[in-house]
Amino acid sequence: MAAHQGDDGPRIHAEALKQFVIDVLESYGMRAEDARISADVLVESDLRGIDSHGVPRLAFYATRLGDGAINLDAELQTVRETAATLTLDAQNGFGPPMAYRAMERCIAKAKEAGVCLATVGHSNHYGIAGYYATMALEHPGMAGISMTNATPLLVPTFGAVAMLSTAPIAAAFPAGVEPPFILDGATTAVAWGKVEIARRQGKELPPGLVVDAAGRTVTDPFAAVALSPLGGERQTSGQKGYGLSLLVEMLCSQLSGSVWSRYVSGSRDNPPRPSDTSHAFIAIDVTAFQPLEAFTASVDAMLRELRATPPAAGHERLLIPGDPEREAYADRIERGIPVHPSVIADLRALGLERGVRVPF
Amino acid sequence: MAAHQGDDGPRIHAEALKQFVIDVLESYGMRAEDARISADVLVESDLRGIDSHGVPRLAFYATRLGDGAINLDAELQTVRETAATLTLDAQNGFGPPMAYRAMERCIAKAKEAGVCLATVGHSNHYGIAGYYATMALEHPGMAGISMTNATPLLVPTFGAVAMLSTAPIAAAFPAGVEPPFILDGATTAVAWGKVEIARRQGKELPPGLVVDAAGRTVTDPFAAVALSPLGGERQTSGQKGYGLSLLVEMLCSQLSGSVWSRYVSGSRDNPPRPSDTSHAFIAIDVTAFQPLEAFTASVDAMLRELRATPPAAGHERLLIPGDPEREAYADRIERGIPVHPSVIADLRALGLERGVRVPF
Repeated sequence: MAAHQGDDGPRIHAEALKQFVIDVLESYGMRAEDARISADVLVESDLRGIDSHGVPRLAFYATRLGDGAINLDAELQTVRETAATLTLDAQNGFGPPMAYRAMERCIAKAKEAGVCLATVGHSNHYGIAGYYATMALEHPGMAGISMTNATPLLVPTFGAVAMLSTAPIAAAFPAGVEPPFILDGATTAVAWGKVEIARRQGKELPPGLVVDAAGRTVTDPFAAVALSPLGGERQTSGQKGYGLSLLVEMLCSQLSGSVWSRYVSGSRDNPPRPSDTSHAFIAIDVTAFQPLEAFTASVDAMLRELRATPPAAGHERLLIPGDPEREAYADRIERGIPVHPSVIADLRALGLERGVRVPF
Repeated sequence: MAAHQGDDGPRIHAEALKQFVIDVLESYGMRAEDARISADVLVESDLRGIDSHGVPRLAFYATRLGDGAINLDAELQTVRETAATLTLDAQNGFGPPMAYRAMERCIAKAKEAGVCLATVGHSNHYGIAGYYATMALEHPGMAGISMTNATPLLVPTFGAVAMLSTAPIAAAFPAGVEPPFILDGATTAVAWGKVEIARRQGKELPPGLVVDAAGRTVTDPFAAVALSPLGGERQTSGQKGYGLSLLVEMLCSQLSGSVWSRYVSGSRDNPPRPSDTSHAFIAIDVTAFQPLEAFTASVDAMLRELRATPPAAGHERLLIPGDPEREAYADRIERGIPVHPSVIADLRALGLERGVRVPF
């Protein structure tokens, strides 16, 4: 549920985009397998309609790779391991392949112990949190949860400075015949991409989403310098979104032995330094709790009844978490991914710079 | 962070209140140990300033006990167990002692496996979620998370009917010399108690907290029939609070094999039927991830720096999760718990009815 761009543009098929991303990443010396995983994470984000985290982000990753700020030879290192936990160190490797392998190991351990909590320190931006949560759905009866910290963007309740991050929480639980339950959202009210879209469109934002340099709630996207927590101001319980962001911080940076969001580096540090982003993953084998058929039948019944809830005045139907992403996916896998002309121009320039064939 | 009453009243010392609660609960035939745990959970809520879940709730519990809707002979039953998971059945026992014993077992297993996820089905209202999360802090290096479903009160985004519950998420992580990180809040914008307080005070509520019978956002507390998710309406990302409530539902009711919030029974069903509330607990041994001294030093440094963040215009300092509860505790353990005169009258009537000495 990060920013959906909304702008239409020429449509490019997922496979063409993926190949382009792979070629660009490999041009920096990234291993083929890592480039394949990373391209899948990025383009999957576009397919799900989360444009803020898809190929428009490739230039950001390219900057980091070009700066030598990422270790392309990194191997995911096991720092500590128990029956149901993993402490992993990404050694400043590229985020998506490191996170992918961490979630794979987390799932494998949950098959043995019923549940596994894995933390990854010293990593980089990993794309959409939801990608790793939904990896669990490829294994019968497996549920997944994924969280990450990031660069400071969230201003705590009554504060004036961004100290925490958008700290998303994603979760995926299997159903039977119904679509699975999928949640993917920042603990800030919105992602920064929403502010950029409002600037482009010259539109005010609803109150409670962003703050100015003094920590005041503003609606002018050009005055905004940072994000409010989910819930907005104190009177609408913004301290809860902020508390959830801090919970994500505890699980990611504190359990992994990495740095907290305040010290996570983005692409703007000069000279570039390691990002030190950290992640946390949970895999849950639902069959450790319930027989699979009983579980999926119960989830199906609940989701079906939720879907049939009478809508509020002025609405045709309820919003079901995951539905917007599924609808975007169905449309985009078929018709291609709409890419904004300015993003296409950026991608073409990047392709030219890297000596990579641009298939669009 | 549930509703703080704000109203002052005569102050009663915690121990006197606890003994009264024990006597009332035992008058219904509750076992001494169960009554002691339950009184501790209730009065701890008052001590933390969460008046909506403290002794003002005793009448609600008494109604359920008087109706015979709770099984006082219930034993916490193990339905399924793996290295790091527990599926428990409370057999319609009283919420607090069942939840207390579940969290104790969850912590013991986390000491072995590094982490444990325990679910409890067929239980009853368990009081504040935070009580069970903070139980972990009594064990060196242990962190705790606690969640529960409840009767339907949350109206999903674009819906007109309450289908989910306030579904609180509580978490407690140890620090070193700093106070620990404690989070305790509903995934709705506010608890229902906030509506009752606004009615008593004749005040409007901020937009985005409550909805009327057609699912429309309203500010008149007398028009409110149900709660909005944390985040409020769709434009301020209420779908995220709703998604988190559904995640809590998955972990509590679906993993425990109990019923979802829609079918959880409160005190108003006639004839009374089992509540079928369900809970989920997570215990995390932080030493499975990091050496304890490194972890607590890192958490201390982060919390100290967060506390020192420059405040926003018009505020003296940042809000730190857990601080309001700690401040209420320090005041109330010393000076007694302020109890609203109408609550005192209710408690006296209950004492008289149950033949129990009223020490206030």
